[in-house]
Amino acid sequence: MTLTRADQVQAMFRIRLHKNASMGEVHGAVVSAGGEVVAVETRATAEAYSIRDITVSMEPGADVAAAAAALRQVPGVDVIETLDRVFLAHLGGKIATHLKVPVVDRADLSVVYTPGVARVCEAIRDRPERAFEFTVRTNTVAVVSDGSAVLGLGNIGPQAALPVMEGKAMLFKRFADVDAFPICLATQDVDEIVETVERIAPSFGGINLEDISSPRCFEIEERLRRRLDIPVFHDDQHGTAVVMMAGLLNALKIVGKRMEDISVVMAGVGAAGVACTKILLAAGVGHIVGVDRVGIIERGRHYDNPVKMWYAENTNFENRRGTLEDAIRGADVFIGVSGPGILTVDHVKQMARDPIVFAMANPIPEILPEVAAGHVRVMATGRSDYPNQINNVLCFPGMFRGALDVRARDINEEMKMAAAEAIAACVPEDQLAEDYIIPSPFDPNVVPAVSAAVQRAAVKTGVATLPAKVPLDDEPIYTEI
Amino acid sequence: MTLTRADQVQAMFRIRLHKNASMGEVHGAVVSAGGEVVAVETRATAEAYSIRDITVSMEPGADVAAAAAALRQVPGVDVIETLDRVFLAHLGGKIATHLKVPVVDRADLSVVYTPGVARVCEAIRDRPERAFEFTVRTNTVAVVSDGSAVLGLGNIGPQAALPVMEGKAMLFKRFADVDAFPICLATQDVDEIVETVERIAPSFGGINLEDISSPRCFEIEERLRRRLDIPVFHDDQHGTAVVMMAGLLNALKIVGKRMEDISVVMAGVGAAGVACTKILLAAGVGHIVGVDRVGIIERGRHYDNPVKMWYAENTNFENRRGTLEDAIRGADVFIGVSGPGILTVDHVKQMARDPIVFAMANPIPEILPEVAAGHVRVMATGRSDYPNQINNVLCFPGMFRGALDVRARDINEEMKMAAAEAIAACVPEDQLAEDYIIPSPFDPNVVPAVSAAVQRAAVKTGVATLPAKVPLDDEPIYTEI
Repeated sequence: MTLTRADQVQAMFRIRLHKNASMGEVHGAVVSAGGEVVAVETRATAEAYSIRDITVSMEPGADVAAAAAALRQVPGVDVIETLDRVFLAHLGGKIATHLKVPVVDRADLSVVYTPGVARVCEAIRDRPERAFEFTVRTNTVAVVSDGSAVLGLGNIGPQAALPVMEGKAMLFKRFADVDAFPICLATQDVDEIVETVERIAPSFGGINLEDISSPRCFEIEERLRRRLDIPVFHDDQHGTAVVMMAGLLNALKIVGKRMEDISVVMAGVGAAGVACTKILLAAGVGHIVGVDRVGIIERGRHYDNPVKMWYAENTNFENRRGTLEDAIRGADVFIGVSGPGILTVDHVKQMARDPIVFAMANPIPEILPEVAAGHVRVMATGRSDYPNQINNVLCFPGMFRGALDVRARDINEEMKMAAAEAIAACVPEDQLAEDYIIPSPFDPNVVPAVSAAVQRAAVKTGVATLPAKVPLDDEPIYTEI
Repeated sequence: MTLTRADQVQAMFRIRLHKNASMGEVHGAVVSAGGEVVAVETRATAEAYSIRDITVSMEPGADVAAAAAALRQVPGVDVIETLDRVFLAHLGGKIATHLKVPVVDRADLSVVYTPGVARVCEAIRDRPERAFEFTVRTNTVAVVSDGSAVLGLGNIGPQAALPVMEGKAMLFKRFADVDAFPICLATQDVDEIVETVERIAPSFGGINLEDISSPRCFEIEERLRRRLDIPVFHDDQHGTAVVMMAGLLNALKIVGKRMEDISVVMAGVGAAGVACTKILLAAGVGHIVGVDRVGIIERGRHYDNPVKMWYAENTNFENRRGTLEDAIRGADVFIGVSGPGILTVDHVKQMARDPIVFAMANPIPEILPEVAAGHVRVMATGRSDYPNQINNVLCFPGMFRGALDVRARDINEEMKMAAAEAIAACVPEDQLAEDYIIPSPFDPNVVPAVSAAVQRAAVKTGVATLPAKVPLDDEPIYTEI
């Protein structure tokens, strides 16, 4: 179950080795391609052949495909598949259980298990909230998905979504020491998802919803927030919205505009688009026009999709009609969570002075930075290979760290805005620049800053059940202990 | 979140420290009781007082209660509670997430998360069974309980059951390197439990049911076994039955009797009693008489409880009637999974020559070894403070280790019997003795032996989907890869 550091092993070839074939020739083929066999494992044997995993260490620059080709030349050898470092890193799963208390001897057993554990059970039976002191609930978040909208891959189902949820769990641990476990659900029915998460909630201190398609994600999150007394957070919505807001706060400082004065075009009104719109409205932005594949979401018009209906009732106060073309005219800010290349230079030219463009579609943004260059003042994308990456990992680890530390019953709008301001503040005013409005996910100041801000906001808004572990900027609301 | 080794810290006192009180006097009080303050943490502050956790290291033999008493004497101090080493070991939970792959830099992120992870998702989307290679399903078991029959505590609910399930998860990891996660369910409805476990199954490679009350546990396990293609194992039933059988196999060697010749009295026909009966029948025992609180389960009689109905149809072929008194006459073996002290010396005196008594009721057995001494030939209990402890931990770690390693679709009777024989064989023939029929849970040979036997049985019975990782004693059934 242990794994060599991923980048120390370049490849593994799974081959069918027929009885007549020679392992010597297999070694020779690998060497001829600039590699070396470091391990051979038999996975199955049958009458006429065996299935073997050949783990190979390649010289820097050597070609894994060439090694595979060389193996195919060996008589009696079929290459069933080639696993590169990405697949090797996933072999056996990416997370495991860690024991926080040693279990060396009988005495340890009697503490962590019977008979000692019975007294802890009784203490929780008598005061259920003590589960948040003496069990995994203290620090564990469920990363829940139904696999209906995974990355850009669409509806690939719960099992195929699992590697993403495991990766998410790793980020929780790596960045905020939050323990997380991936729960992938074998249902995509809204009622069944809600009741299933409710039923497993006693094991968790928080619920992170992930990659659930719109508009189902809105109802699922809302119903779970109402029914559970632990934080529920749909990261695709709010993680994106919070980090977008952080970037916008800094971008506006650069162009010298105020939130309440700007007009924003929102391209894409799915989970992320709606959440971005809500946080913009909460921040005081008055003029927001939403555009989907069909065109501008028109004020007062009827939409079957309840989310678009909400959108039509709460945005586009000038009641613009038409297409992106019509929406973009005079806009200060373009926020894209839609599709590749929908924003042209001509569009950008029609925006107000100092255009701010957040083109967050992945992997290909609404407009590429090199295309927009010279026409925009501030540009951000969802990609790590350009400046100003709008990356959710700046938000969710600190958000849950803070919520868990004050045992918040909910994650509310105030906590999200506080997180956005904390992320923005991680870029020092004197370093603020067009290509530096967002801190790096590896900036060690981000998680503590977000957590502290979230704790304060939770205490102030009365959803905290423990006092903040950070100094408060004004009189807190305490929950009696 | 880190924890000092439990036995290095004896106690923590949570006190309410009123504004007028002095921390100096608090220190003094602890010292006066033979202790030393090693840490003071403020958990809350209010107008008139603060809540503080005083962590204390006591001299060996010093009295924690005395320190609490001394603290109560300090003016302005209330002792809210005293946490001893058991509670301290549980603070913050006992298990955490461990990253099997390092996440140090951007390159690592792109391997374990986006964009690299997308290729692994696609591979699983195209061949779902590959989730058992590239995700936590490979090695992770859900420890599932509804909290309806926890230890001897009864129906204490899901949150109060969590410390036990966490402890169980620790034992899985400690003894067999099986990753396990506790899932405590906020429902006790059979249909809801079955459908909930079905829906979360995509995240797990196996399901260990725990502390679910009888008779609900039978239907829940049977329905889940039918509907899931991963191993489902109710440990309270089969763990107990397997280890009992291991002990009985060795006990019969000592008294020189054969399985098919003995008559057995089973006291208690709940989850464990029924499972013990089934494995005894499978092993060829012909004469089994079950006794519950009311008396002997009578052949052919009608019982409303379907489990007792099954019992009446499949045991007591002599059709005995009456009480334990009537059942025990001439019996070779007494198996107790009932209540304290129900078996008397007079009962034992009426058994056949060389009586074998497994008094497994916890914490107080059906008859105490010191009482039975001189009247029984071989005696076992569920307690660790007497010889021959019938302890489930001898079974479930190796059982799941073996089932996961061959990716078994089920845990069947053959696998259970193979595990029992493997456990029995861990006591060398030449060391076999009345007070040594069962190996220690810390015997390093047990898990590998059980795992190997389980793998072979799984392959032989065609429920394995991977070849055994151990030599096979005869021609296996292979599943094509």
